[in-house]
Amino acid sequence: MYTGASTEDQARSAREAQRAFVVEGADMRTEVLRNLERLLGEREDDLLAANRRDLEAPGADDLPGPIRKRLALSPSKLETLREGVNVLIDSADPVGLPLIRRELDEGLVLEQVRVPIGVLLIVFESRPDAVIQIGSLALRTGNAVLMKGGSEALHSNRALTDLLREAVVKAGGPADVVQNVEGREAVADLLAMDEHIDLVVPRGSADLVRAIKAASRIPVLGHADGICHVYVDETADPGMAVRVAVDSKTNYVAVCNAAETLLLHRDFPDGRAVVQALLDAGVDVRGDDAVAAMAPGVTPADPSDFGQEFGDLVIAARVVDGLEDAIDHIHSYGSAHTDTVVTEDAEVARRFLETVDSASVFWNASTRFADGFRYGLGAEVGIATGRVHARGPMGAEGLFTTKWLLRGEGHVVGDYGPGKRSYTHRDLALG
Amino acid sequence: MYTGASTEDQARSAREAQRAFVVEGADMRTEVLRNLERLLGEREDDLLAANRRDLEAPGADDLPGPIRKRLALSPSKLETLREGVNVLIDSADPVGLPLIRRELDEGLVLEQVRVPIGVLLIVFESRPDAVIQIGSLALRTGNAVLMKGGSEALHSNRALTDLLREAVVKAGGPADVVQNVEGREAVADLLAMDEHIDLVVPRGSADLVRAIKAASRIPVLGHADGICHVYVDETADPGMAVRVAVDSKTNYVAVCNAAETLLLHRDFPDGRAVVQALLDAGVDVRGDDAVAAMAPGVTPADPSDFGQEFGDLVIAARVVDGLEDAIDHIHSYGSAHTDTVVTEDAEVARRFLETVDSASVFWNASTRFADGFRYGLGAEVGIATGRVHARGPMGAEGLFTTKWLLRGEGHVVGDYGPGKRSYTHRDLALG
Repeated sequence: MYTGASTEDQARSAREAQRAFVVEGADMRTEVLRNLERLLGEREDDLLAANRRDLEAPGADDLPGPIRKRLALSPSKLETLREGVNVLIDSADPVGLPLIRRELDEGLVLEQVRVPIGVLLIVFESRPDAVIQIGSLALRTGNAVLMKGGSEALHSNRALTDLLREAVVKAGGPADVVQNVEGREAVADLLAMDEHIDLVVPRGSADLVRAIKAASRIPVLGHADGICHVYVDETADPGMAVRVAVDSKTNYVAVCNAAETLLLHRDFPDGRAVVQALLDAGVDVRGDDAVAAMAPGVTPADPSDFGQEFGDLVIAARVVDGLEDAIDHIHSYGSAHTDTVVTEDAEVARRFLETVDSASVFWNASTRFADGFRYGLGAEVGIATGRVHARGPMGAEGLFTTKWLLRGEGHVVGDYGPGKRSYTHRDLALG
Repeated sequence: MYTGASTEDQARSAREAQRAFVVEGADMRTEVLRNLERLLGEREDDLLAANRRDLEAPGADDLPGPIRKRLALSPSKLETLREGVNVLIDSADPVGLPLIRRELDEGLVLEQVRVPIGVLLIVFESRPDAVIQIGSLALRTGNAVLMKGGSEALHSNRALTDLLREAVVKAGGPADVVQNVEGREAVADLLAMDEHIDLVVPRGSADLVRAIKAASRIPVLGHADGICHVYVDETADPGMAVRVAVDSKTNYVAVCNAAETLLLHRDFPDGRAVVQALLDAGVDVRGDDAVAAMAPGVTPADPSDFGQEFGDLVIAARVVDGLEDAIDHIHSYGSAHTDTVVTEDAEVARRFLETVDSASVFWNASTRFADGFRYGLGAEVGIATGRVHARGPMGAEGLFTTKWLLRGEGHVVGDYGPGKRSYTHRDLALG
C-alpha cells in the first residue's frame, strides 16, 4: 500500500528493511517467492480489476496503441510472470557465497563473500509486468527496491507492489524491502539521497536515462542510446549478410539492440542485395552516394542520420574502405551497445571482436541477440553501456557486490614487517 | 613530457592510445614493465635530481614534516618501486580471459571476457611514488591513466611520468596511455568529460574525495571517511581486546583503517584494562560517563566525537548494551569502511560478520589489516566504500570490466520463439 510516507522515510525504511531481510537467509527469500507465485494466481481478479482502472482512466484511450498494449495485463501475462518467479525459486541463492578464501597467516583467514548491493531505485515506464519481474529479482538477491513506474499504470503498480509486500510479510519479512514510489518529485528527491540509495536503474527512453544520470551522483546503470551497427565485410557470405542485416533492423524496431546503421565494405560485391532486402522489408534506407547508387528507393542520407537511434523501420547506410574505417565509424558514432561483423575471414572477425570497444560485439549474428534472456542470464535488470560494475545485459549478477570478512585470533598489524612475522597469502579451497 | 596539450585533447588521445595499446596484447604490456623496471635503475640520478627540485622549491621547507618525508624520493624507495614492478611483471595478465563461455544454440557461442575499464583519472596528493605504483598497475591491466599529483611534487611527477611513457614507447606502444595532468582547472575539466573518462579514483583527504564526487558524473571509486569501530563483546578475551584496540588505534593513526571509536559491552568485565592500555599508549580517550568512570585521564566525550575521523592519537569510546546496540551505533556513525568485533562467542561473531554492513568486517583482528597488500591483492588502487564495482581494498581486479563476444554462423533472432528454435544455454568449459 502506498502509505504517503515522506520520501526520505521511505528510503530510510528500505535500508533498515534490507539489512533485516538479508540476514534472514536464503530460506526466507525462497519462501517469499513461493508466496508471490501463489498470490499471483489467487489475486488474478483483483490485479486485472486494478489494471482495468488504469485502462479506463481519463486519457487512457488517447495512449498510443503499443503503449496501451504494454499497459494491459492479462491472464496469460500473469501466467508468464508466475513462470518467471518459478525460475527464480529454483535458481541458486549466492548471497554469502565466498569468491576468495585466503589464509593471510596462521589462524587469520580472509574471505570475500557475495552480498546484495542494498537499496535499489528502479525507474521504468508504462509496463506494469516490470514491477513483478524487478521486484522478484531484487528479493531473490536480498536487495530492497524502490520502484517508480509510469503514472498511466498507477493502480496496476500499486496492486502489484502490494502483492510483493504481502508475499514478504507472509514469510515473516519486513514489507518495506519493496516500495512503490509515486510522483516525479519523489524520484527527484531520491536521486539526491546518495546516502540511502545505492544504485539507480532507469529503464525507458534515452531522455529519461539522460535526465536521471544528470540529476544524480548515485551510480546509474543502464543505457541512454542503442546505436548498433552491422558491418558487412568484403568476404561476407551474401545470404548471411542479408539475413543478419534484415533481422538486426526489422525483428523488433523499437528496442535498443536493433541496428541503426549498416556499413558496407567498398569491395563487398553484393551490397545491392543487402540494401534491396532492407527496402523489400519496408525499411527506409538512408544511404550515402555509393549506397544510393546501389538501388532505386534509397533516401539520400543526411550526416545527422549516422549516430541516430531511429527506433523505427529506418537505417542509415554507408560504404567504408575496410575494417579500420568501419571500426573508426563505430567508435565515432556508436553508443558502445552492440555491434556485429558479417565476414567469412576469421582474422577480420578476430580483429573486430577484439578492437570494437562495445559491451557486446558479435560475429555473424544479429545484434538482436544482445539480451539477458537470450544470453541465458534469466531475468534482466537492464542493459548497461557504462564500463563499471556491469556491462551489457545485466542479470542477477549486477545486483550483487562483495564484502570482506577476516577471522583472526587476536592478530594485530604491529606483529608484521621486516624482522617480524610475514604474510602467508595462501589461497584455500572455496568449497 | 608535459606537452601543454589542451585537456580535452589529452583525454581523447588517452582513449585512442588505450584502444591501440590493449590490442597489442600481453607481451607488449610485459615488455613495457620490463623497460620500466630497468629505467628506474638507469635513471636513478635524474629522478633524484628532479625530486630535489621539488624539495628545494620555494615553500618546500614550510611543508609539514610528514608531508616532506612522503615527498622525498630515495634510492631505497626507488628500489621498492622496482620490486613492485617486478611483482607485476610476474603476475598473470587476465585481459581477454573468459569468465563465461556458453552455447546459446548449435554454432552460436557466447563468451564474457575480461577487458580493461579504459581511461582512468587518478587524483592523489604529495607522494610521487604513487605515479609508478598506479601507472604500472594501469599498464599491466591495459588501461590508460591520467594522473594528477600534488603540486609540491611537480618535477618528480613529470620525471616519473616521462619514465613511464619512455617505457611504453620503447616497447612500441603509444606514449599517451600515461599522461601527467597539471593544474586544478585541468582536473575540473576532466571531471566533466564523462564521454572520455571512465573511472575516477581520488586518493587523499576526505575533502578532496568529497569535492571530486560532487563535481563529477563519472563513477568515482574511493572513500571519503574511514570511521572504523572496535566492538569489545562481553565474552572478549581481555588480552586480545587490549591488543586489538591498541593496534587498531595506534599502529598508524593517519590512515583510513585506523580505529576511531571503541564500543565496550556493558557487561565486559575488563573495559578498564582496554581504556587504560589506550591511555598508556598516549591516546586521548574521549569517553561517555561509563567509560570516564573506568579510569582517570579519560576526556568527557562530546556527541560530535562519535562519527569523527581523528586521524590522530584520539579515540571516542562508549559503553553499549550489547551486540544490537553496537551494530546500530556502527550503522549510524560509521563510514562502512572496516569494523571489528572482539569476542570468544562464535555466534556473536557470526551475527556481527553477517549484519555489519561495511566493506570489511573482522573478528578478533585489528582494523589495520584492511589493506590491499595485507589482503594479498598486490598493488592497491585504493579502498572503496561504495557498493558498486569494487568494495574494500581494490587491486588490479577493480581496473577490469567485461565485454560480451558472440560468434555465430549467420544466426538471427527471428528463428527463435514458440514453435521455432529454442536456446540450449549450455555452459562450456572455460579452458
